[in-house]
Amino acid sequence: MKKSVFYHAGCPVCVSAEQEILQLMDPASVEVIHLGEEKSKIANAESAGVKSVPALVTPTGNVLHINYGASMADVKQ
Amino acid sequence: MKKSVFYHAGCPVCVSAEQEILQLMDPASVEVIHLGEEKSKIANAESAGVKSVPALVTPTGNVLHINYGASMADVKQ
Repeated sequence: MKKSVFYHAGCPVCVSAEQEILQLMDPASVEVIHLGEEKSKIANAESAGVKSVPALVTPTGNVLHINYGASMADVKQ
Repeated sequence: MKKSVFYHAGCPVCVSAEQEILQLMDPASVEVIHLGEEKSKIANAESAGVKSVPALVTPTGNVLHINYGASMADVKQ
C-alpha cells in the first residue's frame, strides 16, 4: 500500500498534530518528514501541493492541511 | 475505544476530506456529523473547539481543522 506522507517542521502545532495522526492511523502507513531537517524535500512537498505545515499528503495525492503551524515560506527560512 | 468525531457541512472541501479520512482511519472509529443537517449539534462542536469545517475532534479532545470548507458562522446560516 502506498504510504501517506506527514510533513511538519517541528513547531508545537506540528508535534501535536503528528501525535494525534499517528494515534488515529496505522503508524506503519505514514512516512513522517521534518522539513526543517530535510530541506531538500521542501520542493517535493510544494509540488505535492503543500502550502503550510503540518500537512498530510494521502496515497491518492490529496493534501490535508491540518491546523496551521507555519507557511512554506517560514519553513524555508 | 472512544470515537473521533468528524464534523462537516456537506461542502465540497468537506466531502473530499471525509472520503480521505475514512480511507485513512478505521471508519468504525469515526462518527460523522453533518452540521447542516443536525444543527442542534453545532453547540457541541463549538464547545469542543471547532472553528471551521471540516474538522476532526480526536478521542483525546484535540481538534484537527482539516483544510477549510466553511466557518461555523457560515454553517449556522
